Amino acid sequence: MNIQTAESIDISEYTNGFGVRARAASRILASADTGAKNAALSAIAARFEEQSDVIIAANRRDLDASRLNKLSPALIDRLELTTSRIVAMADGLRQIVALPDPVGEISELRTRPSGIRVGRMRVPIGVVAIVYESRPNVTADAAALCLKSGNAVILRGGSEAIHSNLAIAECISDGLRHAGLPIDAVQIIDNTDRAIVGALVKMSRYVDVIVPRGGKGLIERISAEAEVPVIKHLDGICHVYIDSDADRDKAIRVAENSKTRRYGICGAMETLLVARDVADDVLPELARRYRAAGVELRGCQATREIIADALAATEEDWRTEYLAPILSIRVVDGLDDAIEHIETYGSAHTDSIVTENLTRANRFITCVDSSSVMVNASTQFADGFEYGLGAEIGISTNKLHVRGPVGLEGLTTQKYVVYGDGTIRA
Amino acid sequence: MNIQTAESIDISEYTNGFGVRARAASRILASADTGAKNAALSAIAARFEEQSDVIIAANRRDLDASRLNKLSPALIDRLELTTSRIVAMADGLRQIVALPDPVGEISELRTRPSGIRVGRMRVPIGVVAIVYESRPNVTADAAALCLKSGNAVILRGGSEAIHSNLAIAECISDGLRHAGLPIDAVQIIDNTDRAIVGALVKMSRYVDVIVPRGGKGLIERISAEAEVPVIKHLDGICHVYIDSDADRDKAIRVAENSKTRRYGICGAMETLLVARDVADDVLPELARRYRAAGVELRGCQATREIIADALAATEEDWRTEYLAPILSIRVVDGLDDAIEHIETYGSAHTDSIVTENLTRANRFITCVDSSSVMVNASTQFADGFEYGLGAEIGISTNKLHVRGPVGLEGLTTQKYVVYGDGTIRA
Repeated sequence: MNIQTAESIDISEYTNGFGVRARAASRILASADTGAKNAALSAIAARFEEQSDVIIAANRRDLDASRLNKLSPALIDRLELTTSRIVAMADGLRQIVALPDPVGEISELRTRPSGIRVGRMRVPIGVVAIVYESRPNVTADAAALCLKSGNAVILRGGSEAIHSNLAIAECISDGLRHAGLPIDAVQIIDNTDRAIVGALVKMSRYVDVIVPRGGKGLIERISAEAEVPVIKHLDGICHVYIDSDADRDKAIRVAENSKTRRYGICGAMETLLVARDVADDVLPELARRYRAAGVELRGCQATREIIADALAATEEDWRTEYLAPILSIRVVDGLDDAIEHIETYGSAHTDSIVTENLTRANRFITCVDSSSVMVNASTQFADGFEYGLGAEIGISTNKLHVRGPVGLEGLTTQKYVVYGDGTIRA
Repeated sequence: MNIQTAESIDISEYTNGFGVRARAASRILASADTGAKNAALSAIAARFEEQSDVIIAANRRDLDASRLNKLSPALIDRLELTTSRIVAMADGLRQIVALPDPVGEISELRTRPSGIRVGRMRVPIGVVAIVYESRPNVTADAAALCLKSGNAVILRGGSEAIHSNLAIAECISDGLRHAGLPIDAVQIIDNTDRAIVGALVKMSRYVDVIVPRGGKGLIERISAEAEVPVIKHLDGICHVYIDSDADRDKAIRVAENSKTRRYGICGAMETLLVARDVADDVLPELARRYRAAGVELRGCQATREIIADALAATEEDWRTEYLAPILSIRVVDGLDDAIEHIETYGSAHTDSIVTENLTRANRFITCVDSSSVMVNASTQFADGFEYGLGAEIGISTNKLHVRGPVGLEGLTTQKYVVYGDGTIRA
C-alpha cells in the first residue's frame, strides 16, 4: 500500500499504464461467463467481511487526516466505515450477484429478404473510468457494477479516502484472483495528484466512458476537460405541478413527500407549481405541513397572498437546486404556463404532474423533456432501485445513450450480429 | 434565395439564431402526430417532382461553378441532379412515410412494489445538426429522417451545392407549411462561411447531437472541435477471416463479394485473413477471381508464396481503408491470431468469419469488438436498408448511444415515465 507521489512519476505514462492494463483486462472480461463474474463478486463480499478490521484500520487513518484537515462533519460522516457499513457493502455486492447478467442477450433477431439474419447483441462498453469523492463504499459498488456488466474499471477516489479505498481494492483483487479473472479488471489509482484526472479524461484510446460521481464542481470540471464521453449527472431542479383537476389529497400527499422525505437527494422537489384555480384550496394546508417539517418557503406574489409568511422568491430561486429544507412556490395559470416554467428553469431531471385529467397528464408527459416524467407520483421515486434496475451507478442527465437512473444495462451497448450461410450481397 | 456573405454578419449571433428557432420548432415537433409528419413528407415529395425544373436550374448553377473551380469529375457526378435523381429523392421520402413512427412507444412498463408503474418512452432527441458535403440528396434524406423522428434539424451542406440545397429547402418549407408544421423544423444554413460550422458544433444549448456526413477529414475536424455529442462514422477497415473449418465455396463466395461488389463503400473488405491450414486451398482460386475483377493484391510473405504476383504488404497496408480495388491478404495461424490482427489494425466497423465450427463462430462474435460482427456473410451487408432499418442516416463507429447503421430509432432517445395514484415514497 505505497501511495505514489506526483514528483516521482511521469503523469501521462503512469495514467496510460492503467489504460493499457484495463483494455487488456476488458478483452478477457468481455467473454467471461456469468458464473466467474458472480464467483468473484461473492468472494469479494466474503473478503470484505473477513478483512473488516483491516479496512476499519485503514479508514481510521483517513478519518484522522480528515479531522486534521478540518473537513466538514458531513464529509467525515460519509467517509467513515463501521462494521455495519462494511456488511452493507458486502450485501450490496450479493444483490448484484442476484441480478441477471445483461451481456450476451441477442434481441430483435430477424431474417431479412437477402437471407441474412440480423440481431443486436448486448455487450460491455469496454473500459469505464469512475471519478468520485469521499464515500469509500462507491469503490465497492462501482467496481461490482462494472464487473457484472463485463467492463474493466479504473477507479479514482478522493484523496481523503485513499487508505480506505486501497484496503477495499486489496479485497477486490483477492476476489478476482479467486475467480480466475484478471486483477486489472478493477484498478484503483493509488496516486492522489489531481493532474491524473486530467490525463484520464483525455485517454480516449483506453477509456470508453467516464462516470463522475460527486458534486457539481467535479462534474462540470470533468465534462469541460473530457475527450472521452461522459455519463453525467448535473442538477436536479425537480418540479411538482398541481393541476386544476388534481385530487386534493393526492396533491398534498405528493407535494409533501416530494420535498420532505429527504432534502439532499437529486430527486427532491425544489419548486412547486400550483394552478391558480386550486391555489387557495391546497396551499394553506401544504404551508402548514411544510412549516411543521421546518421547510422555508419562498413564493411568487400570488403565493405570498395565500401564505403570508413566505419570503419573496427571486429569479435566482427558480434556478436553484437547494438540496435543503427550502422550497420555492409559484402560482401558474395552468398547464401551458407550468410547462413553460419547467422548460425555462428546470434541469430536465424529474418532474411530476398531479391531475385526474387524462389529456393533461398525457400532454405533460409528452411536452416535458426530462429524464423522468411522472403522473401523480412523488419525484423522490427517481432512483434506480425504485425503478427496478436492481442497482444504480448514477442518474444521467445526458440525452444520449442513457437518460435517468443508470443500472447494468446503461453500462452496456449493443452491436449488430449477422448470420449468413455463405450469403453474399446482390 | 440570397446567399449571405460572411462580412455582413456576426457569425455567432447568426448561428445562434438557427439554434433558437430550431429549439422552438423541436418543442412543437415533439408532440406532432404521425399523420402531420407524414403529410409533410408526402407534400415535400410531391413538391420535388413539381419543382423539378427549378431544382435542376439551381443545380446547373452549382455544376457550372464546380467546373470553373475544377472539382473532380467524381465530385461533379455526385453533385449533379437529374430528373430521375429527383424522382428517386421523392421516392426516398415516400419510403420514410411508410416506416413506423418510433416516437411515443412506451416499453417495459412494469408495476413496482411501491405501486408506481415505470416504463420507458421513446422520444425525439430534440435538435439535430447535420454537416455534409456535396450530394444534395442528403438534404432531402436527412431532413426527412429527422422530421419523421420528431427532431428539428439544422442542415449545413457544402458550398459547392448551395444553390441546389436552397432550391430543395424551398420545397421542404412548402411541405411543412402545407402540413401545418413549423417551417423552422428544417433549416438550411444559407451561408457558406466555414466559421459557421465551428460555431454550430459548440452550440450545446441549442443542438443536441451533430451528425457529420462526408470524408474522414470533415469528421475528424468536427469531432475535435465539437462540444455537442457527435454521431460519427470513421474508417471502415473491414476484415473477412477464412477459418480452417470454413466451407470452401462459402469462403470464396463471401471473400469475393466482400471486396468486389463495390469498392467505395465503408462495408467493403480491406484485409482478408486466411487460416494457414486452408490458405493453399482457397487463395489460388480467390487470386484468380480478384485478378479477373482487376483487384491489386498485397500480401504477407506466406501469401506471396501462394500468390506469386501479389505485392509485398507493408505495415501501413494493414491500417489502410483503400476504398479502391486493392486488397491486403494475411495468412494467420488460426482464430486467435485473426482476432489479434483485427484488434490491432481494425476500425471496429464490420468483420466477418467464414467457418462451419460453431464454437469458433461464437468466439469470433464475442471477442471481435466491432459495430457489426458476421458469420458466413459478406461485409457488404453492413447497411441500414439491408438490416431492415428502412432508412439510414449513417453508420456509427461510436460505442455509446448508437453503433452500426443508424435509422430512425438512433435519432430518438428514451425517457422514464412513472405513473402513480398519489403515490409517495416511504
